[in-house]
Amino acid sequence: MKRLSLLSRQRTDWLPIGSAIRAAVRELKVRDGILTIFVPHTTAAVTINEGADPDVLADLTRALDRIVPWNADYAHAEGNSAAHIKASLIGSSVRVPVREGELHLGTWQEIFFCEFDGPREREVWVLADPL
Amino acid sequence: MKRLSLLSRQRTDWLPIGSAIRAAVRELKVRDGILTIFVPHTTAAVTINEGADPDVLADLTRALDRIVPWNADYAHAEGNSAAHIKASLIGSSVRVPVREGELHLGTWQEIFFCEFDGPREREVWVLADPL
Amino acid sequence: MKRLSLLSRQRTDWLPIGSAIRAAVRELKVRDGILTIFVPHTTAAVTINEGADPDVLADLTRALDRIVPWNADYAHAEGNSAAHIKASLIGSSVRVPVREGELHLGTWQEIFFCEFDGPREREVWVLADPL
Repeated sequence: MKRLSLLSRQRTDWLPIGSAIRAAVRELKVRDGILTIFVPHTTAAVTINEGADPDVLADLTRALDRIVPWNADYAHAEGNSAAHIKASLIGSSVRVPVREGELHLGTWQEIFFCEFDGPREREVWVLADPL
Repeated sequence: MKRLSLLSRQRTDWLPIGSAIRAAVRELKVRDGILTIFVPHTTAAVTINEGADPDVLADLTRALDRIVPWNADYAHAEGNSAAHIKASLIGSSVRVPVREGELHLGTWQEIFFCEFDGPREREVWVLADPL
Repeated sequence: MKRLSLLSRQRTDWLPIGSAIRAAVRELKVRDGILTIFVPHTTAAVTINEGADPDVLADLTRALDRIVPWNADYAHAEGNSAAHIKASLIGSSVRVPVREGELHLGTWQEIFFCEFDGPREREVWVLADPL
C-alpha cells in the first residue's frame, strides 16, 4: 500500500492524482493488476472524469452544490453535512486497471480526489491487486 | 465468501456493519487484503461515512429524500422507484482494506448498509481479495 | 481482460450487459473470483439495478434528468456537462462476484451500461480478480 498526501485549496476542490498514482505504481512495482484508490475520509471522495477541460470540474462543483446545498436544515452540529452527503454520492474508492506497468484508462479519463470540506490536508491510499 | 443477515427497521435505514464485517474477516482468516462488501439487492446499497454522530445519517436520509422524492410521477408499478434510484446513486459495493487482520479505515469511517425500501430482511456479502 | 463493444441508441440509455459478461467469464475461464466491470468513458457509467421491469430504467432516466438537467448554466463548451456529472454520480466501475463459473448476483440484479451522451459506440472492460 502507498499513501499519498494531498493539500486541498478550497471548500470544493478536484485534485488530479493520476501522476502521483503512476509514481506509486512504479514504487509498488505493479505490472498487471487493478488498483483500488481509497479515500480514508468522510467528507471527501474519489472519482474518474474528464481531465482535459477544467470547466467540467467547475460544472461538477456547481451541480453538486445545487443538488446538496451547503446551508440547509441540517442536524449535524459540525455544519459540514453537505460534504458528508456528497462523499456518499460520489464514493470512497475507484478501481483503475494497470497494464504493463501503466495506468490503463480511457482517452479522456483522469482520477480526481474530491474535496468537499476543504481546504485541508488529506490522504489517498493506493492498493494494488495483482491479476 | 461470508453472508451477513440484516434486519432493517424503517423505510430508510443506515445499519452500521463494521463489527459484523470484522467478525467475517476473522472467520475468513484474512490477514492482508481488500474486502469487497456487496449488496445483492436493487433497493438497498452500501456506503462508508461517519459513524460517530447519528445526525449525519439523519441528514443523509433527508437529503436523499429531497433529491429523490418517494412520491413522484414514477412509471414502475411497485411504487418503490425512489429506492431503486437511490441504490444506483450510492452503489452496490464498497472496498475496504484489511491489514494484519484488522479493517484499515480512516478515523471517522464506518461501513453502512443503506436500506431504501424497508423494513425487511436483507443480506450483505463479504468477499476477500488477498493482497 | 475482455473488451465488450456496445452501441447506445439514444442520449440516455441503459444497456443490460449481464449476458455479454457471462460470455466473457467463460472466455476468461474465471471459476471463482470477483469481476471489475470498468467503463473507460467520462460521459457514461455502469450500475447494478433491477432487470425485470423496464419502467425502473425509465424512472431512473427521468430522475437523473431532474437532478442534473441537460440545459443549465454550464461552462463546459461541449454542451454535455450533465453527462459528465451523471457519470461521477453513478460511477465508473462495479464489482460482480463469480462462483463456479457463474455470475453470483441477487435475484433481481442486472448489470447496466449507463449511456448519458449517446447515441454512440462504447466500450466496457471486464477484468477478473481470482479469489
